[in-house]
Amino acid sequence: MTQVWKSFGSDNHAGVHPAVLKAIQEANVGHVPAYGNDPTSERAKEIIRAELGQPHAEIFFVFTGTAANTLSIRSACRPFEAVVATDIAHINEDECGAPEYNTGSKILGFPHVDGKLPLSVIENLTIEPKDSHRVLPKLVSITQATEMGTVYKPDEVRALADIAHKRGLYLHMDGARLSNAIVGAGTNTQDMLKGVDVLSLGGTKNGLLCGEAVVFLNPELGERFAFIRKQSMQLLSKGRYLSCQFIPYFAEGIWRKNAEQANAMAKYLRSSLIKACPEAQFPYATEANEVFVILPDELSKRVQKEGPAYLWDKQTGLIRLVCSYDTEVSDIDNLIRRII
Amino acid sequence: MTQVWKSFGSDNHAGVHPAVLKAIQEANVGHVPAYGNDPTSERAKEIIRAELGQPHAEIFFVFTGTAANTLSIRSACRPFEAVVATDIAHINEDECGAPEYNTGSKILGFPHVDGKLPLSVIENLTIEPKDSHRVLPKLVSITQATEMGTVYKPDEVRALADIAHKRGLYLHMDGARLSNAIVGAGTNTQDMLKGVDVLSLGGTKNGLLCGEAVVFLNPELGERFAFIRKQSMQLLSKGRYLSCQFIPYFAEGIWRKNAEQANAMAKYLRSSLIKACPEAQFPYATEANEVFVILPDELSKRVQKEGPAYLWDKQTGLIRLVCSYDTEVSDIDNLIRRII
Amino acid sequence: MTQVWKSFGSDNHAGVHPAVLKAIQEANVGHVPAYGNDPTSERAKEIIRAELGQPHAEIFFVFTGTAANTLSIRSACRPFEAVVATDIAHINEDECGAPEYNTGSKILGFPHVDGKLPLSVIENLTIEPKDSHRVLPKLVSITQATEMGTVYKPDEVRALADIAHKRGLYLHMDGARLSNAIVGAGTNTQDMLKGVDVLSLGGTKNGLLCGEAVVFLNPELGERFAFIRKQSMQLLSKGRYLSCQFIPYFAEGIWRKNAEQANAMAKYLRSSLIKACPEAQFPYATEANEVFVILPDELSKRVQKEGPAYLWDKQTGLIRLVCSYDTEVSDIDNLIRRII
Amino acid sequence: MTQVWKSFGSDNHAGVHPAVLKAIQEANVGHVPAYGNDPTSERAKEIIRAELGQPHAEIFFVFTGTAANTLSIRSACRPFEAVVATDIAHINEDECGAPEYNTGSKILGFPHVDGKLPLSVIENLTIEPKDSHRVLPKLVSITQATEMGTVYKPDEVRALADIAHKRGLYLHMDGARLSNAIVGAGTNTQDMLKGVDVLSLGGTKNGLLCGEAVVFLNPELGERFAFIRKQSMQLLSKGRYLSCQFIPYFAEGIWRKNAEQANAMAKYLRSSLIKACPEAQFPYATEANEVFVILPDELSKRVQKEGPAYLWDKQTGLIRLVCSYDTEVSDIDNLIRRII
Repeated sequence: MTQVWKSFGSDNHAGVHPAVLKAIQEANVGHVPAYGNDPTSERAKEIIRAELGQPHAEIFFVFTGTAANTLSIRSACRPFEAVVATDIAHINEDECGAPEYNTGSKILGFPHVDGKLPLSVIENLTIEPKDSHRVLPKLVSITQATEMGTVYKPDEVRALADIAHKRGLYLHMDGARLSNAIVGAGTNTQDMLKGVDVLSLGGTKNGLLCGEAVVFLNPELGERFAFIRKQSMQLLSKGRYLSCQFIPYFAEGIWRKNAEQANAMAKYLRSSLIKACPEAQFPYATEANEVFVILPDELSKRVQKEGPAYLWDKQTGLIRLVCSYDTEVSDIDNLIRRII
Repeated sequence: MTQVWKSFGSDNHAGVHPAVLKAIQEANVGHVPAYGNDPTSERAKEIIRAELGQPHAEIFFVFTGTAANTLSIRSACRPFEAVVATDIAHINEDECGAPEYNTGSKILGFPHVDGKLPLSVIENLTIEPKDSHRVLPKLVSITQATEMGTVYKPDEVRALADIAHKRGLYLHMDGARLSNAIVGAGTNTQDMLKGVDVLSLGGTKNGLLCGEAVVFLNPELGERFAFIRKQSMQLLSKGRYLSCQFIPYFAEGIWRKNAEQANAMAKYLRSSLIKACPEAQFPYATEANEVFVILPDELSKRVQKEGPAYLWDKQTGLIRLVCSYDTEVSDIDNLIRRII
Repeated sequence: MTQVWKSFGSDNHAGVHPAVLKAIQEANVGHVPAYGNDPTSERAKEIIRAELGQPHAEIFFVFTGTAANTLSIRSACRPFEAVVATDIAHINEDECGAPEYNTGSKILGFPHVDGKLPLSVIENLTIEPKDSHRVLPKLVSITQATEMGTVYKPDEVRALADIAHKRGLYLHMDGARLSNAIVGAGTNTQDMLKGVDVLSLGGTKNGLLCGEAVVFLNPELGERFAFIRKQSMQLLSKGRYLSCQFIPYFAEGIWRKNAEQANAMAKYLRSSLIKACPEAQFPYATEANEVFVILPDELSKRVQKEGPAYLWDKQTGLIRLVCSYDTEVSDIDNLIRRII
Repeated sequence: MTQVWKSFGSDNHAGVHPAVLKAIQEANVGHVPAYGNDPTSERAKEIIRAELGQPHAEIFFVFTGTAANTLSIRSACRPFEAVVATDIAHINEDECGAPEYNTGSKILGFPHVDGKLPLSVIENLTIEPKDSHRVLPKLVSITQATEMGTVYKPDEVRALADIAHKRGLYLHMDGARLSNAIVGAGTNTQDMLKGVDVLSLGGTKNGLLCGEAVVFLNPELGERFAFIRKQSMQLLSKGRYLSCQFIPYFAEGIWRKNAEQANAMAKYLRSSLIKACPEAQFPYATEANEVFVILPDELSKRVQKEGPAYLWDKQTGLIRLVCSYDTEVSDIDNLIRRII
């Protein structure tokens, strides 16, 4: 049997986990009310609330991570209120300006440290409710796992939440790779989310077909979100097919198994690269499913082509390789063979 | 075997056609590039172009009909340019203000006649490029089939297109129920779209899981649309699962078979209602898959509950019943039995 | 001495009242803090609060009536909340879509009766907080004097306010010609504004150089408005020159004298037109400073040219003539002489 | 006679130049067409075109510098196109997010060098018309004089323009203090603007009451700007009172005399501070009318209070003092006396 091609370019190059496809098929019975007012969607929300340990969380399914992030901002900020994030935050760099365009709010990007937003940024933030010339910070947004493949530990999240709340700010978590972060930190969902007000709950990068949710752990923020979702073009008529994907994901623990596999493969990939090229430099810890590495020129080019791998920084030559839930040891061994 | 419940509330209460689910399964092999840069998406676009007979059409998949309509407007109008439509247009009434919010453009709603936009509206339209106090009409938008279940004939579309173009306006078609309209008019896709500049190509109401596309028959309008789609949160990372649905839809003629069934059932429903209640009034022709009817009070309430049916107009008591691609004679017979 | 040309095209063809120019000169002494944090601006606000009899009103000066209206909407509505107004409302027809563009909110235009919004519109309004497909009405906006030159009496305003508040809506008054309306209704400022939540207080059409204010009679709505004003580009650095205009306007009763003159001249113009042309039709009462008239073709053309007068409706030939605070009997006599 | 208070807090603490007030009075004769369609406005535009040496420049008066900048962006960029500026650019820091809110476009802020945008930023800019995940740079915006009181020389502007144009970008100049910059660089208006596509022409900080203009040196960019101005709430009905201010400003050379005085006073202030406090540090050259200085703590506090002076940077204690067109030697001597 021919080897199926596996990519290290992104975890969204992978397909859909079989259990998720099965859930879609099982949801495909007869007619049901549209727009998420169906039993499958209700059940999915209950299962998510149980996983979070938050029976009052408000949950809304949307199509993309960009939408989950953008609409989290729209729900928490008025347009003259600003978002505090790292300079490399996905919302700041990789969403084609969707947050600004769709919310009007400005993103204030501060230099990251190991991919993370330093506590001192929030401590030293100028917040001047009398100065109408500057936007008013209102929401802190962190990405989990970070854009550099590192992970905030639960007490780091809590510390950011505490200082944010003390300063009158909400905390948003862009959880596009939340599963990988929870596994990477050796913790569980509930502990990871303590202090978070609104969460972009990502599933697509970890085996779903198309499944993201905006989760209001602080339910006040979610008031009237149904209107925001519709007005921002994120309401699926046949809602059951979005929500159903989360049922096996959480009820059968697929989120954890998939993330464990992807994270383990990232560690294996890192050690394989070290073996293959002792001069390889790794500026960031590999705590989730992404490996950032600087390689000698020739080798780097081959990895970018064969991986494929994404050239993250032209100046330094930093490249990114991502492992997916279905990456296997043999895929990494093959890659190493192809590039050496 | 128990009878599966069938709804007359909307054609998006129905599930996914088996061939479409099969296409999703077949697309689920290995890794592919993300964001629609995959072979499945290329093939889907080729198949759509072939169906349209327009090899240069630009095609972009999006998540919802509201998004397809809104982003069509965003691509054709600057914010001070306006959309001309009927007062009952879906874009004017049923999208929670998404067009205005996401584009800034105003919708000018004119009284419909039998659900359609009269030619005279465009003929008499005031367009004053020197008067900056009023928005500048730029796009005519028609819905096919109309919100009242009627259908523009191909030569009606062409007449609207001609006068629109003569006056410097583009023509947009909201094709949420395009298949039903083509079947209802007894024509084919190519003839139905002559003169249209940009099309919201709907599939979800006719058997897809979630599949809409913005089709630029006038490719100039689609320039830079990739940025518009991303910035407006409509770019699926695992693009193959959106696009693949259109492959059997057009290659196997499912769009036509499904629409034929839904339309035939609407006609049967209308005649069944007449038999059951000779006083029933039908203010609009049933040319696609929707039946609009005014019934005696008691009966109307029962239909609204049992159909279920949507109360379209509180004043007149007009209700709407919609047939789906999987509505069967027995479903209608059952409904009639339940309400009499 | 040559006769200075006087226009009947609009009351903003007139210049600045001498007392207002004098106030600007008097404000021009030395340096003061910028952005409205100066003693002149404080004094102007106190004088307005006294005129309104509302010591807690929040007052913000802006540049134009379009801005006052648009930012009133921005302060009262979230983007999925809608404005209820007449179809001919200035905000709906004559502001180039500024409300929609700058707020995202949709304007729902209902047929006017004698220029006014019928009470029944608000009584029968559909407000469905559970239906995210439709925008949610939140603000009723009326124009005073109306676009047809008629005037809401104080008890008409109060009746609209009562029913609006009962239904959970705010009331906005576009007071571009508030002075003319107060004079026309034979009342005073305080009685005219009972029940109003937010007011666009106009001065430019009645003798100011450039002076409008957003007045929050319901001060809650004005919270954070300083940020809205700055972000929407309506904050003058040398704020004293905007605010100072209102000092003589209210302290010396110029608003009333000017409006009395303009209104009286409109009445005189109407009777002069009747004398000159007994077939003249006046579809609307002349209750403020505007006269709407339908004249025989030849005469109508001469009035449009010589007035000049604005052709309001091409279909019916309705034209509008406006009297200004400095229109005199001789100007009207001259006009009549020129057109006969 | 009592000494009139003079502020060093900002050049918009100053009043209106007498010749400008006189122009306003002279414009106040009789009725004229509204919205800038009057002879005064035409004459003002001709005088500006003559000063620029650009007979085809399109000129639009607006109310504020924030508006001039924001609408320049709106005219040059689609919402997914971005602005390249320094991190400290007024558009990026001091306009309450107006550019993002009103245009949707993102501002990319790069570290300044001596207040200026380094040429290398534009040379190294990533512009990827195929990558819809990132905004597409389209407009370079520089501030003249810069936010740090330095000045781009004409050949620096030209060099930026050349590389910008080569890379397909437009060049915008925020000329809030253009006069001070021209005088500071020892050049003239025409030479200073070579290569600029769109200019925010500022007057308010240099003696006007309220006068800014958007000037399209590249007239293509100004097409349909009349609609943009109206829709963005920047169209004054009594337009003559905005435009007339520019007539003496340029025809009588007031712009230059005022800027010469303010610049000379800034130089004198700098040398006075050096004399009064030899430890004073000046991180930036004083090339226009602003002085940036770091002083010993006690002295710094006194200057901030007595100047008053604006604390620019809490970390370093950098403060800003601004001289106005009417600042005199005695005002500076007084200040020095008060703080020592």
